[in-house]
Amino acid sequence: MSIKRIDPDDRWSEATIYNGVIYYTGVPTNLINDAYEQTKSTLNEIDKILARVNSDKTQILDVTIFIVDIADFPAMNQAWDEWVVKGQAPVRCTVQSGLMNAHYKVEIKIIAAVDQ
Amino acid sequence: MSIKRIDPDDRWSEATIYNGVIYYTGVPTNLINDAYEQTKSTLNEIDKILARVNSDKTQILDVTIFIVDIADFPAMNQAWDEWVVKGQAPVRCTVQSGLMNAHYKVEIKIIAAVDQ
Amino acid sequence: MSIKRIDPDDRWSEATIYNGVIYYTGVPTNLINDAYEQTKSTLNEIDKILARVNSDKTQILDVTIFIVDIADFPAMNQAWDEWVVKGQAPVRCTVQSGLMNAHYKVEIKIIAAVDQ
Repeated sequence: MSIKRIDPDDRWSEATIYNGVIYYTGVPTNLINDAYEQTKSTLNEIDKILARVNSDKTQILDVTIFIVDIADFPAMNQAWDEWVVKGQAPVRCTVQSGLMNAHYKVEIKIIAAVDQ
Repeated sequence: MSIKRIDPDDRWSEATIYNGVIYYTGVPTNLINDAYEQTKSTLNEIDKILARVNSDKTQILDVTIFIVDIADFPAMNQAWDEWVVKGQAPVRCTVQSGLMNAHYKVEIKIIAAVDQ
Repeated sequence: MSIKRIDPDDRWSEATIYNGVIYYTGVPTNLINDAYEQTKSTLNEIDKILARVNSDKTQILDVTIFIVDIADFPAMNQAWDEWVVKGQAPVRCTVQSGLMNAHYKVEIKIIAAVDQ
């Protein structure tokens, strides 16, 4: 079995696929916005990556959400709740951590199933 | 291969199973207690989930422990050491992060093997 | 399918292997050094573990890097860029978290493919 890489760059690949599973970390693209809009943006990036490999948000197994400011938890949840498919949600763990871009309010790491 | 979800709620599922692996994040249920008791509680939640899928703590592959206060590291370790099966321990990584419930002192994310 | 453990100790195993995947968390061994040297050391530990299971850094699927001080991000990246194989890089997520040894500046969690 071999590893499939999505958009391999020098420093990292956007996503990797192996043994029926895709690994990906999404970041927001709209950095001047609030946590609600940044979360929407990040979830949209996740949708786009999954669509490229014929998967979708109902196939996500595990999610780790990093937010910089705990006060942004409700705004993040609002964007999440509007996006997630009820009854087909993944495991989710949210923690407060600093992020590497001073404008990031959220970063979302996922593991999802893909057809082989 | 399809995804099996344990207690799928609107926002998240308690656990997901795919390709021989279960994903789960445990939180303490006894929030007024100290880090030792909260860790015991969280590990007990892990035991209960794994028992429901005919797995157990000797089948855990990878653990990420988030603690809010580094000073709680010894208390967390005490509960861990009383619980873990020596010689059949998983990989373990512990970091300090803020958690989303102001009473949480610990949160434990696991990946474990399950029979298919 | 059974779990293979690398150097199982009482509290944790150095690495676990299951279903074609190895789980491992690397820490630096040269704790008096700066973030660049600590990252080099941690990446060297990763190389050593992977070599023991006939894998290597081109087989890494997913990486989570925890750094204590965001100011160390460039030094960590320098060591990373010297080490990573361009075009065969894993997914990478870096967050700021406190670590359990007061001398650690970095800790690196990986999931990699191994031949079965």
